[in-house]
Amino acid sequence: MTTVGDEMHALVERLYPLCRSITGDGVRRTLEIVGETIPLQVHEVPTGTEVLDWTVPKEWNIRDAYVKDPSGAKVIDFAESNLHVVGYSVPVSATMSLDELRGHLHTLPAQPDLVPYRTSYYRETWGFCLRENTLAALPGGQYEVLIDSTLADGHLTYGEHVVEGEVADEVLISCHVCHPSLANDNLAGIAVATRLAARLAENRPHFTYRFLFMPGTIGAITWLALNRHRVDRVRAGLVLACAGDSGALTYKRSRRGDAEIDRAVEQVLRTSGREHTVIDFSPYGYDERQFCSPGFNLGVGSLTRTPYAGYPEYHTSGDNPDFVSPEAMTDTLETCWEVLRVLEANRRYTNLSPYGEPQLGRRGLYGSLGGRSDTQQAQMAMLWVLNLSDGDHDLLDVAERSGLPFPLVAEAAAALHDAGLLKE
Amino acid sequence: MTTVGDEMHALVERLYPLCRSITGDGVRRTLEIVGETIPLQVHEVPTGTEVLDWTVPKEWNIRDAYVKDPSGAKVIDFAESNLHVVGYSVPVSATMSLDELRGHLHTLPAQPDLVPYRTSYYRETWGFCLRENTLAALPGGQYEVLIDSTLADGHLTYGEHVVEGEVADEVLISCHVCHPSLANDNLAGIAVATRLAARLAENRPHFTYRFLFMPGTIGAITWLALNRHRVDRVRAGLVLACAGDSGALTYKRSRRGDAEIDRAVEQVLRTSGREHTVIDFSPYGYDERQFCSPGFNLGVGSLTRTPYAGYPEYHTSGDNPDFVSPEAMTDTLETCWEVLRVLEANRRYTNLSPYGEPQLGRRGLYGSLGGRSDTQQAQMAMLWVLNLSDGDHDLLDVAERSGLPFPLVAEAAAALHDAGLLKE
Amino acid sequence: MTTVGDEMHALVERLYPLCRSITGDGVRRTLEIVGETIPLQVHEVPTGTEVLDWTVPKEWNIRDAYVKDPSGAKVIDFAESNLHVVGYSVPVSATMSLDELRGHLHTLPAQPDLVPYRTSYYRETWGFCLRENTLAALPGGQYEVLIDSTLADGHLTYGEHVVEGEVADEVLISCHVCHPSLANDNLAGIAVATRLAARLAENRPHFTYRFLFMPGTIGAITWLALNRHRVDRVRAGLVLACAGDSGALTYKRSRRGDAEIDRAVEQVLRTSGREHTVIDFSPYGYDERQFCSPGFNLGVGSLTRTPYAGYPEYHTSGDNPDFVSPEAMTDTLETCWEVLRVLEANRRYTNLSPYGEPQLGRRGLYGSLGGRSDTQQAQMAMLWVLNLSDGDHDLLDVAERSGLPFPLVAEAAAALHDAGLLKE
Repeated sequence: MTTVGDEMHALVERLYPLCRSITGDGVRRTLEIVGETIPLQVHEVPTGTEVLDWTVPKEWNIRDAYVKDPSGAKVIDFAESNLHVVGYSVPVSATMSLDELRGHLHTLPAQPDLVPYRTSYYRETWGFCLRENTLAALPGGQYEVLIDSTLADGHLTYGEHVVEGEVADEVLISCHVCHPSLANDNLAGIAVATRLAARLAENRPHFTYRFLFMPGTIGAITWLALNRHRVDRVRAGLVLACAGDSGALTYKRSRRGDAEIDRAVEQVLRTSGREHTVIDFSPYGYDERQFCSPGFNLGVGSLTRTPYAGYPEYHTSGDNPDFVSPEAMTDTLETCWEVLRVLEANRRYTNLSPYGEPQLGRRGLYGSLGGRSDTQQAQMAMLWVLNLSDGDHDLLDVAERSGLPFPLVAEAAAALHDAGLLKE
Repeated sequence: MTTVGDEMHALVERLYPLCRSITGDGVRRTLEIVGETIPLQVHEVPTGTEVLDWTVPKEWNIRDAYVKDPSGAKVIDFAESNLHVVGYSVPVSATMSLDELRGHLHTLPAQPDLVPYRTSYYRETWGFCLRENTLAALPGGQYEVLIDSTLADGHLTYGEHVVEGEVADEVLISCHVCHPSLANDNLAGIAVATRLAARLAENRPHFTYRFLFMPGTIGAITWLALNRHRVDRVRAGLVLACAGDSGALTYKRSRRGDAEIDRAVEQVLRTSGREHTVIDFSPYGYDERQFCSPGFNLGVGSLTRTPYAGYPEYHTSGDNPDFVSPEAMTDTLETCWEVLRVLEANRRYTNLSPYGEPQLGRRGLYGSLGGRSDTQQAQMAMLWVLNLSDGDHDLLDVAERSGLPFPLVAEAAAALHDAGLLKE
Repeated sequence: MTTVGDEMHALVERLYPLCRSITGDGVRRTLEIVGETIPLQVHEVPTGTEVLDWTVPKEWNIRDAYVKDPSGAKVIDFAESNLHVVGYSVPVSATMSLDELRGHLHTLPAQPDLVPYRTSYYRETWGFCLRENTLAALPGGQYEVLIDSTLADGHLTYGEHVVEGEVADEVLISCHVCHPSLANDNLAGIAVATRLAARLAENRPHFTYRFLFMPGTIGAITWLALNRHRVDRVRAGLVLACAGDSGALTYKRSRRGDAEIDRAVEQVLRTSGREHTVIDFSPYGYDERQFCSPGFNLGVGSLTRTPYAGYPEYHTSGDNPDFVSPEAMTDTLETCWEVLRVLEANRRYTNLSPYGEPQLGRRGLYGSLGGRSDTQQAQMAMLWVLNLSDGDHDLLDVAERSGLPFPLVAEAAAALHDAGLLKE
């Protein structure tokens, strides 16, 4: 029987070989594959478009690249792993000495068996990445170097999937799609976001959910530039990344620190029994940097497992499909799902009978929850909702102050609302 | 020599046998007895009166009740303890099998020697409470059952005692009078409130003090309904309950959490050396639930010893006069008294010489407090009062921030006021 | 080679013998000597001038004083130490018995080898201070007592030194000059303030710095009275005292508790690695009492080493030049200097490109800080400054929230400002 975890891992494995970058056909192909599960609106933004303080760069594509040693053997081969070429390398076809070549080679001396991931988006150069151990074994002599790439006017590509809700207020779920063969730092987030969207679409949610599959930094900046007039619809958001490693969950708060998304995620993490860490916002990491820039200052946090740059395999060939597990991605997915359920149910109600307690008994409200093992908690939840529904508190406040589980609080609020005791 | 503790205990013992409920002659007789010590204005509110979201219920009175076993022996007898009858039981006169009777019998299997306290105010039924051990020994056969009660239109009764002060701003002291033979949960609070009122009346206080002796929930709701137009006079309030057990004092904050009463009680408890606990508001317990409903949101906290439902004897025949002591009631009384003294003296002053320190020496203000062992503290108290009397801080703030005892702060403020350095 | 510490200690030794009080020639001579290093504007305020709630007192001067025992030997001699005479003693020339004399003698029974420091500014009397051991050895008989002093209309004297800045906003540095031969409690603060002023004058600072050398209490009150119309220019201030003992630094917050000076000093102390204590404001101590009176409520804190009255030598002959060290005064000076550098550089910037991150790379801003060991921290500092420069946060906020060193934050802000990304 295939689990959702298996499905997510299969998606990671399928996307892994593609050579993604901040532009180019790798991103397009990635979006096509995601589009098989959830319909994507794919945007193509021309090179040279001015987006906030930035300009959409040239599009980069690569067909082949290798380095042959003096004997003609391919000692570095793009076909074997796209990490071997520095992202955005300009085309090269040349023969040169090992010494000359060395200036273009990148290794990790402290991790001699791993290939590093390197890019040079905004300075035109070229380079190869390889294992330190491979480099150490290269003989002297003349090397043939080929990079069959194109860096030319084209487009920046990103994908958008919207689950329409009852209201236009939006929740953003964003993940980056600009890393080539890196599983945790890219693909796990894509896989979790895709399944989350699919699950949401099964029911019409209250809020509108916008899933963004975009290259990091320039993609978020482009989206924000094109959607600047409508970001005030964004009620909450999550940047998903590093969603599949074996570490505990880490939530990084929005710049605001107490935005609804912050309170919702912390509520879920605190009450779920999951091991987790909550850290304050800092202007580094993934695209929360852009969403939380002071002009936008959106309520967008970031959910990862081991955070940005926090594991030795980060930005190396060690971040491969074996580094992420179905179980971890499932755990991330379920956490996201619980967070969305909190956002969906969170409301700011007003008690319509705020003078004294309303008589719950004659409305059958005690009975409505009777016969359950948590009757007493359910009654407490009703009393708390009534007591705090003064227009200043939402249900997350009620859950936090009462210490009661959010779902019980939401259920109590629904019963009270049905009984005409609350208005939204 | 009779102490005030002995007097309070004697009152508990005298009130103990009366069959109180939320309405009826038991309450009336209780108020008569309290009225022997402090004059009470007794209010009679007719059945059917709409009070906030509630309606004043029928009045319940009971003359006799028993169950006779097949041999004709009274195995349950109201005359022995009024706890034996479920409060608000409708009249019954019938003969039935033990099995049929069983559905109307309430015991405490885990506390087989105690009689539970049960009521059914808003669902018309009848029942008896008894020891689990008694129930176990009942023989099979036909039982004669009698409840000679009346449930009919009448009144809800509550008592009010006002100590007029210099100003119309009010401090409420409220206790419930609706429990039958329960000593800590009812009578100890009545006894403490009665003595507190008597002591207050000995001097004309600054504030007006309103003592409320009311049935729980419906009584408070009735009072709030009838006094809705004047609750903005309520500056502070305390709900007194469980005032006589051997546990440490517990203060439950008002919904506001930082109301003057909260700060006053915490100041007294913190500086008195008494063992105590302070807990946050929750919408369950005694009539603070009503006073702190969001529409009223009064600065009313609750002072108990062991809190609501926090002791095994709670709502059982174990909560009898032996369960409360003169010493504990005296300690509760003295704590209340200290709290009232803080409220009385707490003012928000404005320093009339706020630029630099005023010269205290030439006004004899150092000398005015000289010759005492706490001269240095007294001087510090004057400097703190002057420094913080900017219109934003009251004397409780001064005591809290300075760490000085409130009485010393109040005395310093009085001396500075007399010297013309402060205005109210 | 003479260090600044040696220079400060030499100043302490030179000032030590002068008989300072709240008025008189000892203060004048002290200001003359300070004036040799930094130009002082000396103010003379006539006796009887009304200053806030106070009146400038008579001026006191003393030429000689002694007590001769029955044999004619001088057993107490002002020429040996000016502490021997109670400050503001009225003139005396009399012969009296030891018993009669005793009422005018002050000793420290618990510190029998130390001479106490006593004054009587506002009650006209006279007295001598001596060692308890000296007192114990005095024979009976008639004593000749002479105090050749003048208490008459004159002036209160204080000195002011201003380092003009680019803007009129002022930083006050205040120290008291009213104690006679007391080194830590008086002279060390004078010495540190003098060197700090001299160092500031070497460069034109951004803010204007006003150094005040004033008698305690009445001096500060006089200055505040005369400058009442312009205290709104005071952006921050430090009262310096007890600046030379061997204890750790103590910072006492302003009454506001979170004034810029509080945040600046705490930032310096926290990041400097210096052992230190931070305490809350209290209305006792040095002239922060006056600056922080509620009418002024200036952002003025107090920096000491061991605080007010916190060492056994306090207000005794034990507080002599040996009690203060060049090293401790240098440490206090350097701390003040670092605080002033923080105040100088602290600004509230507005990010001119607040939507998304601006592209730092194309402006050469990564490069501008490249090649240093703290490149990564420098980049983080730029991102933090951009992220928090929303008009609500100053650079101290950035340093506090980011945990980065203030100088790095200030440097990043300067680079961003030069690049046109920030405005003030």
